[in-house]
Amino acid sequence: MALIVQKYGGTSVNDDERIKIVAEYIALTKSKGNDVVVVVSAMGKQTDQLIRLANDVSTVHPGREMDMLLTAGERISMSLLCMALSELNVQAASFTGSQAGIITDTVHTKASILEIKPDRILKALNDGFVPVVAGFQGMSVEKEITTLGRGGSDTTAVALATALQADVCEIYTDVSGVFTADPRIVPNARKLTALDYDEMLEIAANGGKVLALRSVEFARRHNVSIHVRSSYTWEPGTWIKKEEKDMEEALVSAVTHDISEAKITATKVPDKPGIAASLFRKLADKSINVDMIVQNTSVEGNTDISFTVPKTDLETALNVTREVLPQLGGTEVLADSDVAKVSIIGAGMKTQPGVTALTFETLAGCDINIEMISTSPIRISCLIRKEAVEQAVLALHAAFNLEATG
Amino acid sequence: MALIVQKYGGTSVNDDERIKIVAEYIALTKSKGNDVVVVVSAMGKQTDQLIRLANDVSTVHPGREMDMLLTAGERISMSLLCMALSELNVQAASFTGSQAGIITDTVHTKASILEIKPDRILKALNDGFVPVVAGFQGMSVEKEITTLGRGGSDTTAVALATALQADVCEIYTDVSGVFTADPRIVPNARKLTALDYDEMLEIAANGGKVLALRSVEFARRHNVSIHVRSSYTWEPGTWIKKEEKDMEEALVSAVTHDISEAKITATKVPDKPGIAASLFRKLADKSINVDMIVQNTSVEGNTDISFTVPKTDLETALNVTREVLPQLGGTEVLADSDVAKVSIIGAGMKTQPGVTALTFETLAGCDINIEMISTSPIRISCLIRKEAVEQAVLALHAAFNLEATG
Repeated sequence: MALIVQKYGGTSVNDDERIKIVAEYIALTKSKGNDVVVVVSAMGKQTDQLIRLANDVSTVHPGREMDMLLTAGERISMSLLCMALSELNVQAASFTGSQAGIITDTVHTKASILEIKPDRILKALNDGFVPVVAGFQGMSVEKEITTLGRGGSDTTAVALATALQADVCEIYTDVSGVFTADPRIVPNARKLTALDYDEMLEIAANGGKVLALRSVEFARRHNVSIHVRSSYTWEPGTWIKKEEKDMEEALVSAVTHDISEAKITATKVPDKPGIAASLFRKLADKSINVDMIVQNTSVEGNTDISFTVPKTDLETALNVTREVLPQLGGTEVLADSDVAKVSIIGAGMKTQPGVTALTFETLAGCDINIEMISTSPIRISCLIRKEAVEQAVLALHAAFNLEATG
Repeated sequence: MALIVQKYGGTSVNDDERIKIVAEYIALTKSKGNDVVVVVSAMGKQTDQLIRLANDVSTVHPGREMDMLLTAGERISMSLLCMALSELNVQAASFTGSQAGIITDTVHTKASILEIKPDRILKALNDGFVPVVAGFQGMSVEKEITTLGRGGSDTTAVALATALQADVCEIYTDVSGVFTADPRIVPNARKLTALDYDEMLEIAANGGKVLALRSVEFARRHNVSIHVRSSYTWEPGTWIKKEEKDMEEALVSAVTHDISEAKITATKVPDKPGIAASLFRKLADKSINVDMIVQNTSVEGNTDISFTVPKTDLETALNVTREVLPQLGGTEVLADSDVAKVSIIGAGMKTQPGVTALTFETLAGCDINIEMISTSPIRISCLIRKEAVEQAVLALHAAFNLEATG
């Protein structure tokens, strides 16, 4: 008998049929003698519908009210799921983020979890209930309703698994695990059986969409085992857990790609100390995550500074950069949205050389120009033209022999 | 400068356009120097949609989960209304029942308000905000989310007006006030300028749909003036307030009708003391509101007991009656859903005779048979065949000269 946290994303509870199927699986898990705590997202397109309504009534969307609006979504899915469980004679009770004791700061629309006080969840478990907890939401120390931002439900699940000392946190989604590359681009991509936290962090941070980055960070910090799997096939998926000493590390585990970033370039900036710092401080002040940064010194003592930011922040980042440009002494600010990042990720590459060389050779062999490069001990990322991204992913996947065998 | 509680029902905030119109009117009220507290229902058909979803996923609907589900509705409407107010540069903040301090018992789906702790609402007012409060919902003493049942939003508004000592509680709806009869049946029905609490109570209890009975009871107990009016025309509506001594009381203020009840008859019950009591005790135990009761003694010492209950409770009431029948010593239980109740209501009738006679004469003149009668000091109700209801209302409205003049 184990304590299992099961998280079901929006596609898993898309409609009434899906909710019934999920309820049956929860009932099955429970019937095997396990204690189950469920975390659920809003149904399929619910969040999009609510955002559309918000756009229809107003161009102004105060964060506090957006949080109030969007948290309606999980209320609907979780109460419906409890009803479907009741029909199967499984006692279930839904809990809002607030009721589940998920205490956050008051940064509306992207709050951080500060603490979990799972008293009511523990009591419900003790009473034989399946607690069904709203993902994505919490209550702030100022008693305001908050949401955790993108990937918030995964974070709720991992945080609850930590607080409850659950044996495993199962993340159910519409794919059967983490793959060596996006199967829509690479038909023979292979499902990975296990990954360590660092690899999964790099995958999540570099375009892998299966798990939210924050939830992986949380799991790593608290050593929570995650099992990512499909709520359609229910087959075993991918385990994300602490690296085991005797586990042979793959040189390369996955090729990821990301087309969600744009490149900004400030040209002909005088090459003096502290110049770049002032720019990136101002971007940080606006909560913009700068990813890759490249600075090319030219012979005249001027430099071009290029960096990438999420496309959703491009407008703001451009404004900040243009504002700072006179102080920088730069000439102009250029924006480029037609870029893509391909990354090679593998825990084994930190001890084995040659991955960088093969990556560059492979892209060169495809006649793909590398515009920016960034690396970590277990990752190499290259910024390329967006139109070349599929070709690059296919070529790299083949070059590192990641395809499914058999 | 006044403190005004404005309640907007589902039809008033039906869609994005209506929400914007309501926001403009709130902004106007505020710009005149008033403090405004808004109570809002779920948008138009939202509640029906959520109930449909519940039916789709399960035949079992635990009250706790229904409350969780349905309270999503006001979260959506109130946050959208706050956004629309923000667009008009009116600072607004939404509050759930819990946040507004609406403390209830834990009778899910039909909770009663025990207390209001409006600290956060008062603080928001003090800070210059328009608090927008979710109608229909509260938090129980056991920290469970509850709903107040039918007409709950009206009750929220009146209860808040009481707690905040508001100058007036304006109930906005899709009709322009309380009429002498349903204008869909009586085209020349007249809008009433003012009614006292007792009259409004009788109207609400006997088929008038404009205000929920509970909210009128609450207003009467706490002497809150209600102004029922239209959110489409914004014209002055009907005031419901304490009877003023110098106010000349209308003999008859309104004719109402109600087709929401059904008649149950237990036949040939021995005419002994205590027999009926045991039946009505058991019905009360099931929370069934019995309205009219008639007992006809026959020559053989047996009696037929007839009574009316809401059609929604008919099934349960029939089961209870059938169960009790052997103890009653009765013969059979009959149900009849094709009945209607017409009522004549007027504060003046308690001092002036003749109303009963004219009522009976009018119905007799239409060849309408009266099956049951019940009266109060300011009301006469007659149960008739359902198909005769429109004819009866028209005839009574004309007989008591209630039509609009001019």
